[in-house]
Amino acid sequence: MAQMLSTQPYKGTRDFYPADMKLRNWFFGRIRRALELAAFEEYNGPMLESLDIYIAKSGEEIANEQTYNFTDRGGRRLAVRPEMTPTVARLVAAKMGELNFPLKWFSIPNLYRYERPQRGRLREHWQVNVDIFGCDTYEADLEIISTAVSLMRAFEADESMFRVHINNRRFFNDVIAAIAGTDAEGSRKVSKVVDRRNKVTREAYEKDMAELGVDADKLARIDALYSMSVEEATALCPESRGSQELLELFRALRELGLDKYCVFDFGIIRGLDYYTGTVFEVFDEAPENNRAMFGGGRYDNLVGLFVKNANISGVGFGFGDVTLENFLVTHKLIPDIYASGTKVLVTRFDDVPYARYTALVAEMRENGIESSMYIGQKKFGKQIDYAIRNNYSHIVVMGGSELASGTLKVKNLKTREETEMPIEALVSFLLA
Amino acid sequence: MAQMLSTQPYKGTRDFYPADMKLRNWFFGRIRRALELAAFEEYNGPMLESLDIYIAKSGEEIANEQTYNFTDRGGRRLAVRPEMTPTVARLVAAKMGELNFPLKWFSIPNLYRYERPQRGRLREHWQVNVDIFGCDTYEADLEIISTAVSLMRAFEADESMFRVHINNRRFFNDVIAAIAGTDAEGSRKVSKVVDRRNKVTREAYEKDMAELGVDADKLARIDALYSMSVEEATALCPESRGSQELLELFRALRELGLDKYCVFDFGIIRGLDYYTGTVFEVFDEAPENNRAMFGGGRYDNLVGLFVKNANISGVGFGFGDVTLENFLVTHKLIPDIYASGTKVLVTRFDDVPYARYTALVAEMRENGIESSMYIGQKKFGKQIDYAIRNNYSHIVVMGGSELASGTLKVKNLKTREETEMPIEALVSFLLA
Repeated sequence: MAQMLSTQPYKGTRDFYPADMKLRNWFFGRIRRALELAAFEEYNGPMLESLDIYIAKSGEEIANEQTYNFTDRGGRRLAVRPEMTPTVARLVAAKMGELNFPLKWFSIPNLYRYERPQRGRLREHWQVNVDIFGCDTYEADLEIISTAVSLMRAFEADESMFRVHINNRRFFNDVIAAIAGTDAEGSRKVSKVVDRRNKVTREAYEKDMAELGVDADKLARIDALYSMSVEEATALCPESRGSQELLELFRALRELGLDKYCVFDFGIIRGLDYYTGTVFEVFDEAPENNRAMFGGGRYDNLVGLFVKNANISGVGFGFGDVTLENFLVTHKLIPDIYASGTKVLVTRFDDVPYARYTALVAEMRENGIESSMYIGQKKFGKQIDYAIRNNYSHIVVMGGSELASGTLKVKNLKTREETEMPIEALVSFLLA
Repeated sequence: MAQMLSTQPYKGTRDFYPADMKLRNWFFGRIRRALELAAFEEYNGPMLESLDIYIAKSGEEIANEQTYNFTDRGGRRLAVRPEMTPTVARLVAAKMGELNFPLKWFSIPNLYRYERPQRGRLREHWQVNVDIFGCDTYEADLEIISTAVSLMRAFEADESMFRVHINNRRFFNDVIAAIAGTDAEGSRKVSKVVDRRNKVTREAYEKDMAELGVDADKLARIDALYSMSVEEATALCPESRGSQELLELFRALRELGLDKYCVFDFGIIRGLDYYTGTVFEVFDEAPENNRAMFGGGRYDNLVGLFVKNANISGVGFGFGDVTLENFLVTHKLIPDIYASGTKVLVTRFDDVPYARYTALVAEMRENGIESSMYIGQKKFGKQIDYAIRNNYSHIVVMGGSELASGTLKVKNLKTREETEMPIEALVSFLLA
């Protein structure tokens, strides 16, 4: 006897049964609608890409270790895409001459990362990617942050539930240099230490700083940045382009009434080397779950991996379905997805020709009413049970005696209300 | 200097730029809507699955050769899914006790096959999969075929453009046995030869048949089946369960008015061993492209790969996005996807504060109007060019002089019509 196969999905991946899928379609539908309202256009690319594009962005070691990769029969090294950024940079590079910048693009790809499964970090997840390409000034940063806010608001999230923490990489480098008195290379080293600030002990942090020539006095001035307003902080290096960008962005956020969702936070750096200007992270404000959910920022050189001296800047963010779902659950923002909508099951009796039922269903479908006859030959009780367990909102009952009098009964499964009517009144009753 | 990376997608895969994606969303949207109207529920599963499930269904050789597969660090053999059937059988098997049969399920997964790229047969494609599980009788076959028709009709395809060719595997076996006088094993061998009928010369066909004891007279009687109506054909073995199923199905199709889309065709066998009853293929009727586009049928044992003696039958079909797109192009059924819909670009002038524009856009978005300010700082002519090339339907012009008089101008980019109005009238003008 052959061994039976496992019914489990591959480790770190998920099956989406209809209720799961309906929820996912609901929230990606909201996101898609919010993005389309803001005139973002959707794109997509293949699930398999050349491994080289991930190596070029993140280095051989990370690309090899964190992706599912293999070699095809033609000797090409492929990866199951772990992120969307190299793909979108490739798409932009391939049609650079034809595309009309600035591009406002988004995608909702599934991605694979080869990592230890843990809460919110599965091996396969779906990630909303939103980017603007080809605009170097603050208007694009503003639109990206305002879009991140509008996505949260599309789920009825308010300012008590989330907050956008904003910083600027240019400002960060300049203010560190101004305080520490370091050159570019020195600032870079100090930045790396600051980036690890919350990951090491205070003692280790002070020691690392001291080694780079940042004494206790300078350190106190850096520490002070974490509780400053954007005006106070930028006053420390008013000539920095980063300072000007921050002030311009916050002024525009105030004018748009978005400042209640936003806060300056010197702690936001985002480790990735490719960020060059504005950086931000969106935090869940729930006390039990207070953490960064997703983030993004401005990067300047990705298209350059494909086209020499491409010089097309980008600003964007990406966030995953698992993170979003955790947030929505925490704040009770998921409605009963089966509560609204009409979905009708026509029950079946042996003394009525089946064609009477299929004709009724055909008429409902033509009128845009989700409906089905009961497919098969079970007893009435089983059919009702089927309707309830499969989230039908109504059943239609038309047995031999009803048919003889040209009537049928409609039962609303939520209110338990039952209505008798002429057969030809069914559609208008359901549409009313 | 590092070698620049290629901007091409991996061989046999496609990039979806916004116009491609919009088209794809348009047609999958129609399909999804038609399926939901018929109360089918969407599911999905992971892109990576255990290779074993494909080996169990199709054998080691086919599974190894036709899939992208590799071994993970835990020694698990994985495949990038080449088809959805084993996944859906796994999902059904995993929750057999909780699910409410009959299930009406669909999915629109992307799939990878390792094959030579050719027209309509890319390495990555998207495939609509529609199935009913857990109903053994003709009602499920009827609903599946009627759903296939409704998907074609969702694109305004009429009976001159496509035809559903229907046969039944039980009938096929029984009528061959009746004519050839063969036992079960003999019928199976004859079936295999008949399946190859159009792939070999007439001479080779006759020779193979003769070797199985099918002489010229018997062969003529088999040949005659190809031009028979369903009544004539089934009269040759009226006791066959397959005959009864065919007659029942065609009667129901007539009662539903679907017979004009359907024809009995003894030539439809579908090679796959797992089909057990009704089989069908949907043909493109265009003279220049007359061929089977997609098909399906009834299969009984797939869930049994996972659960011993599961005994859950299925009937369904699957069809690919490339095939569908070819059909729609051939019959000119693709509308101008940018023709309808309002999408507004607010152009920008230096003498007006940017906040005036962002406020206008925020108001439009709140009212459900797709819109954007021009992001960046280009001349007016460039902004108009941008609007046209990015498929905006309208532009809003509000320079310093308009603002001073509290007005703005809206220009319809299709009709070239320009309308001046008070600023606060914009939203109601666009919604009218």
